[in-house]
Amino acid sequence: MVALVGLGGSATAQDAMQSLPRPETTDPVALGLMQGFPPPQDKLVTLANTTKFPNGSWAFHHLRELGPTANVWRGPQPSSVLPSEPHDLDDIKFADDKGQSITIAAWQKATYTDGLLVLHNGRIVYEKLYAGMTAEQPHAIWSMTKSVTGLLATMSIYDGTLDPNAKIAQYLPELATSAWGDATLQQTLDMTTGLNYREDYTDPKSDLFPYLMATGLIPAPAGYGGPRSVPDFLKTVTKQGEHDVGFQYKSVDTEVVGWVLQRVTGKSFAELVSEKIWRGIGAEQDAFVWVDPRGAQVASIGLNATLRDLGRFGEMLRNDGKVGSRQVVAKAVIDEVRKGGDRDKFKAAGQDVRAGYSYHNQWWIPHDANDSFEAKGLNSQHIHINPAAGLVIVKLSSHPLGNTLFTHVLDRNAFAAIAKAIQ
Amino acid sequence: MVALVGLGGSATAQDAMQSLPRPETTDPVALGLMQGFPPPQDKLVTLANTTKFPNGSWAFHHLRELGPTANVWRGPQPSSVLPSEPHDLDDIKFADDKGQSITIAAWQKATYTDGLLVLHNGRIVYEKLYAGMTAEQPHAIWSMTKSVTGLLATMSIYDGTLDPNAKIAQYLPELATSAWGDATLQQTLDMTTGLNYREDYTDPKSDLFPYLMATGLIPAPAGYGGPRSVPDFLKTVTKQGEHDVGFQYKSVDTEVVGWVLQRVTGKSFAELVSEKIWRGIGAEQDAFVWVDPRGAQVASIGLNATLRDLGRFGEMLRNDGKVGSRQVVAKAVIDEVRKGGDRDKFKAAGQDVRAGYSYHNQWWIPHDANDSFEAKGLNSQHIHINPAAGLVIVKLSSHPLGNTLFTHVLDRNAFAAIAKAIQ
Repeated sequence: MVALVGLGGSATAQDAMQSLPRPETTDPVALGLMQGFPPPQDKLVTLANTTKFPNGSWAFHHLRELGPTANVWRGPQPSSVLPSEPHDLDDIKFADDKGQSITIAAWQKATYTDGLLVLHNGRIVYEKLYAGMTAEQPHAIWSMTKSVTGLLATMSIYDGTLDPNAKIAQYLPELATSAWGDATLQQTLDMTTGLNYREDYTDPKSDLFPYLMATGLIPAPAGYGGPRSVPDFLKTVTKQGEHDVGFQYKSVDTEVVGWVLQRVTGKSFAELVSEKIWRGIGAEQDAFVWVDPRGAQVASIGLNATLRDLGRFGEMLRNDGKVGSRQVVAKAVIDEVRKGGDRDKFKAAGQDVRAGYSYHNQWWIPHDANDSFEAKGLNSQHIHINPAAGLVIVKLSSHPLGNTLFTHVLDRNAFAAIAKAIQ
Repeated sequence: MVALVGLGGSATAQDAMQSLPRPETTDPVALGLMQGFPPPQDKLVTLANTTKFPNGSWAFHHLRELGPTANVWRGPQPSSVLPSEPHDLDDIKFADDKGQSITIAAWQKATYTDGLLVLHNGRIVYEKLYAGMTAEQPHAIWSMTKSVTGLLATMSIYDGTLDPNAKIAQYLPELATSAWGDATLQQTLDMTTGLNYREDYTDPKSDLFPYLMATGLIPAPAGYGGPRSVPDFLKTVTKQGEHDVGFQYKSVDTEVVGWVLQRVTGKSFAELVSEKIWRGIGAEQDAFVWVDPRGAQVASIGLNATLRDLGRFGEMLRNDGKVGSRQVVAKAVIDEVRKGGDRDKFKAAGQDVRAGYSYHNQWWIPHDANDSFEAKGLNSQHIHINPAAGLVIVKLSSHPLGNTLFTHVLDRNAFAAIAKAIQ
């Protein structure tokens, strides 16, 4: 599961894609991955080989079958209704990142899409599932988990439970001597902490891998002596440079936020997501979160949810926190997220393809003409919310490359083409 | 997780209970088991220590947080309504197995009850949850899984998909040289196969333990070279004696039935339970099944479900397969289960406390005046269906002893007292 997290890197689409299998050859059902009782040895997907492409095309919508998870209860209420008003978007043409014409169907294929949902003013205008995925199956959303955690933290700041200017050590004395000892909650939420920690999935020596071993998502090698739980890993992260200087994308910041939330509320991450979001949006299915070997819930990359429930989540956000007449999240909370962060500090990450962006409270803010805001996860997971167009797009994928920053312009162009087509 | 399965043994209630902690001291929340973020080291429950009493009182309703599982989808339909007509049964007195007076409340406590549900003619007359369990939490049902698997197999026999007289090797060539090579499906369903396999949780050398290691429910010791999946384990079981001579309780027989079902239908156990039962009964929550390290679903002891959904399951069976006007399971299928098996062959197991019983298609048949029938699981899991009284009782527990055959008379007396009280 090497290709899980990390959003650095500068490979171009052309470089990255040249050596990849063609998407049409990677359908897990056609390939026989985990098919049959029992599956043949060479078609077996386990945590030890989810990195071996195309195993993710099965694993990312069967993650629960590979390890411990906690349920995010949808609650007792009926699911909220998403009316349907189908549009055929497949043949819509738009210019890709190289200026070549491509269709929405071809873009989905090229980016290894497992599911695409388009909501326009709350109506389903387009919904496709691929790779054997069904509508009720939760799919790994990887780092889009961060945006859920960030929203929960913003809600807790809004209701006074958390103080954005408090030092992390005030909430978590265990981290007093770690990098977060003198970092504020807001710096941690905005990933402007100065940490001796780098996340690069292309570098086997990256700090990412011991973090992933601590989550249990990748097995530790024999005799491994490193931390076997996320809280234990966080304690080992030391400070480097100063806080509040520049944005660097670091999953461990989110784990700290998740830990703070759980410590202060006395509720698990899964309980918080259920109580404060999933029940409120009228989710159709339970979601779930990955659990580490010591029972800690992985608040940075652990959530799995269905395509439609992620659509409901996006639609609630687009609608200033309302689902019908029910105010699920205060408008002020969403306004806080959407105002964005410091665009100058964002530049420190060197994500030139995201020029003009900021990262605030675990959300990507493009500061564009549509006031759009975005959640992103590795292997091409997207929630794109475009309030000006009344648009919510959810894309779940099993891209063979973890870091799909190189498709950023292509994806943005596709989202814009969809916005134009449905007006 | 030593105390998982096995129904042999002859310890008396008095012997067995003398050395046990008092039930009122074992509430997992009061004890702080898995409480806090992260839980303290000495309060940590993992697969390696679920046998250490009272860890089961947390683990048995959080099993999903300890390892891989597959979801049993409840389906898209609304849950079936269970009307409520509360009766206070707590103070009902009855005679225990030693002739001493005991109340329903005291019986629940003495048998480490996590949840008790009583349905009378489809109405909830009593429902209690303990040990921090909530109504939406699935609880391990251990060997009651067998009765679900047996029902599915009986349905497949009824619709002609399976032939009870076919040899197992006809469906599973992999087992041709194993004990089941010349055993019929019916012998396997009735556990009258002759196997070199004994299930005794009090004997560390029992074949039970390598079986449990194959399921992944208990961790294998360092350097363990035995089978790491249920199908691989089944291949190692050899014949001993003759088939069709006597009943012996053996979880591996059920695993063979589950494997046959999946092989023949091309659907996983979780899919079969969902499609053929869970959707039909109008379950309120998804259930789930434990998955072994190679992705096989554990059809003998792996199911986990909520108290109420097990009540719906029992009520459907009591009602000759109907839920309202919907025929979920053919009456003939339930009649086949209820007719029972060979009472003479049953005697071979030496379960004197169950004199007069038979075991047929994975159900316990008392052949009593009420035509009752029962599912049973270790650590005191019960579904008791008494058609004469219009009664369904579901009891979920975390009894410190796996084998609770020594409370059989006590439990039967409690069921009879409840039947009398609600008439």
